[in-house]
Amino acid sequence: MTDEPNINPSRRTFLRGSAAAGAGLMATAAHAQTADPLITEVQDYASGFGDPVDAAPYGTPISHEAHVVRRNVEWLTESPVSSINFTPIHALEGTITPQGCAFERHHSGAIDMTKQDYRLMINGLVDRPLVFTFEDLMRFPRHITTAFCECAANGGMEWGGAQLEGCQFTQGMIHNMEYTGVMLRDLLAEAGVQTAGKWVYVEGHDASSNGRSIPLEKALDDVMVAFFANGEALRKEHGYPVRLVVPGWEGNMWVKWIRRIAVYDQAVEGREETSKYTDLMPDGRARKWTWVMDAKSVITSPSPQAPIRHGAGPLVITGLAWSGNGRVTRVDVSTDGGNTWAPARISGDAKSKALTRFHHDMNWDGSEMFILSRAVDETGYVQPTKQALRDIRGTNNVYHNNAIQVWWVRADGEVENVEIA
Amino acid sequence: MTDEPNINPSRRTFLRGSAAAGAGLMATAAHAQTADPLITEVQDYASGFGDPVDAAPYGTPISHEAHVVRRNVEWLTESPVSSINFTPIHALEGTITPQGCAFERHHSGAIDMTKQDYRLMINGLVDRPLVFTFEDLMRFPRHITTAFCECAANGGMEWGGAQLEGCQFTQGMIHNMEYTGVMLRDLLAEAGVQTAGKWVYVEGHDASSNGRSIPLEKALDDVMVAFFANGEALRKEHGYPVRLVVPGWEGNMWVKWIRRIAVYDQAVEGREETSKYTDLMPDGRARKWTWVMDAKSVITSPSPQAPIRHGAGPLVITGLAWSGNGRVTRVDVSTDGGNTWAPARISGDAKSKALTRFHHDMNWDGSEMFILSRAVDETGYVQPTKQALRDIRGTNNVYHNNAIQVWWVRADGEVENVEIA
Repeated sequence: MTDEPNINPSRRTFLRGSAAAGAGLMATAAHAQTADPLITEVQDYASGFGDPVDAAPYGTPISHEAHVVRRNVEWLTESPVSSINFTPIHALEGTITPQGCAFERHHSGAIDMTKQDYRLMINGLVDRPLVFTFEDLMRFPRHITTAFCECAANGGMEWGGAQLEGCQFTQGMIHNMEYTGVMLRDLLAEAGVQTAGKWVYVEGHDASSNGRSIPLEKALDDVMVAFFANGEALRKEHGYPVRLVVPGWEGNMWVKWIRRIAVYDQAVEGREETSKYTDLMPDGRARKWTWVMDAKSVITSPSPQAPIRHGAGPLVITGLAWSGNGRVTRVDVSTDGGNTWAPARISGDAKSKALTRFHHDMNWDGSEMFILSRAVDETGYVQPTKQALRDIRGTNNVYHNNAIQVWWVRADGEVENVEIA
Repeated sequence: MTDEPNINPSRRTFLRGSAAAGAGLMATAAHAQTADPLITEVQDYASGFGDPVDAAPYGTPISHEAHVVRRNVEWLTESPVSSINFTPIHALEGTITPQGCAFERHHSGAIDMTKQDYRLMINGLVDRPLVFTFEDLMRFPRHITTAFCECAANGGMEWGGAQLEGCQFTQGMIHNMEYTGVMLRDLLAEAGVQTAGKWVYVEGHDASSNGRSIPLEKALDDVMVAFFANGEALRKEHGYPVRLVVPGWEGNMWVKWIRRIAVYDQAVEGREETSKYTDLMPDGRARKWTWVMDAKSVITSPSPQAPIRHGAGPLVITGLAWSGNGRVTRVDVSTDGGNTWAPARISGDAKSKALTRFHHDMNWDGSEMFILSRAVDETGYVQPTKQALRDIRGTNNVYHNNAIQVWWVRADGEVENVEIA
């Protein structure tokens, strides 16, 4: 797809070195191998060998990218084992989140399991309670689904104001991976769900067990019992060897190191769906069973951790959008604090319940601006402003903050997290 | 998408432990938290904490997956810096290849560069020769493309027979990544291609420079100058910070650490497109400019490095298919040596010029079988047998071996690379 960037033809003025290169470079193929003597800015070819092919049977990022890491905020939790870290979305591109820097949320730390010892039980209101080994699971029909996993608490600190500096911290409890596994419905069919069964209760092998209740209708729809993420086995911290994938629904339900799936006639109403993951409303009562992650977006660059380091001229604004209710159909960008909006380009796929990448090319005049993005999904739902959310949910809602994010870009290129009236 | 597996209803006989679990487990929600006393095979919950969230700012695979690595074959090349290693496709799933175990092919090793020092030159038959810094490139409109990169020599050893044990070695010079970068056509438009220009010549910063000529039409089509792969920066061994992506065309053209793009009126006919990467025919002459990677597929499991470790009953056959000419539209699987074929399930996307995953669920009777896959692409092209290729190209063709792969599955589950008449 060819997109014509809506930029000023003065782009060329920003390319350094071009004038110096103007003369004497009309080369034909016969001269192809001769150096271009007037270009002194291009590095020489390497004069020695680089790494051999047996240097790294499993490679890691180059040292120059050491800043692209998960980060945690120590004062957020009492202990680092029942805590969270954040995906460096300000430094990533595309739609896939590498497992190595994809955020983690654990309630009792990331545990070690082997495939050999792994067992998955299905019991409760089923004809045949079953225990699967990992090898058993590998013999069921496999499917692929790409889905975002977002913690319900993503942006939770921001209910009270613009508190954290950087989209890694304000929206970084999110990742997007291509999962391969078996459909929960196929496993439930094996066990034989009885007509009295209306819910499934899922729990993990970790000490917290993290039990959650899922309506049977969802369990029989697109829920996956997954073993692979982005082509390889799940990482330890992402639930190795088996985790649940619940497309579009809050991350806490995506139980890791999954141990048991029980069919019951009602919700269990365990800790993680009563004391936690419920939304405290202004009248003191809490909404529960708010499973779906509503449409949301954020500009990942420029952003507080990703300031503009060049001057006026062409500027790439980029970000992510997603919706637990289906596909993102449009992302609008504003550079004047939300007074006017223009649709951004969606790059790559706009998959249902998966991260969608948008780009917006503009000519920056070098002055300060307030930049915002706004997602629209296939249901017609439009990402709301923070004030619109607060008007209904107050400021102690804790979870499900999908408000529009405002970044204040200063003339020096630095960016701050702000709220505007 | 709901697929009904074509399996024998006797699946249940393979699930261990199910009979023992039959009694006394009709639990209601009120009993949800009590243990299921008759199930002794499910592991206890962890009794302590796992890793905290600050354990690994950038994570790596769990130790139990240490076998999922790149491997090289030492006797293939004289030196490990001008050599290749292979993707462990037998152990992967889905369509994305993690950068860490994606194959590498270098002509003078993987070099270290920084973004700050990086420069890209465009010269030759252009109005304005230009030198870009990395920051310059980051200001052009970005796009996303997912594409397979296959070395033309993938399977090269197999022209002479069934030589290597394992699809990692017979078809593992391949990977598939989601790239983000700028379109080469946008950079060329900036420089202004002159009407005399018919080819671009691309070379890298490494000592080999790896110069290749690309027809201008292709350069203006879907060729990308890429900075990100699977969401993060390119790895050192994949060309950090910038490489070329030439969808559907042989991997050698995907120049890494790209240094210069020159527009010329003819092909340069450098070493890498004359001495190498040309196809030696039976009459002693060689075909050149055989850029496109024709449709191909391989069953990744079962395969020699991935034997069947269970007995008769449900068996998952899975593999990959791809075509440099567009989308894979069908993958056929045979379990009787190619006498009869049935279409496999395509899981996930079947993107143009990208790896496509297929699955085939069968009921294995436990006896030996010869399993094959055959890709069909959107042009109607059908992946050929090895004999059909040899009839035209002989056995010294070196490159572009896209023949159907045959695996001999023995009754004990072990698998061998074989050829059949």
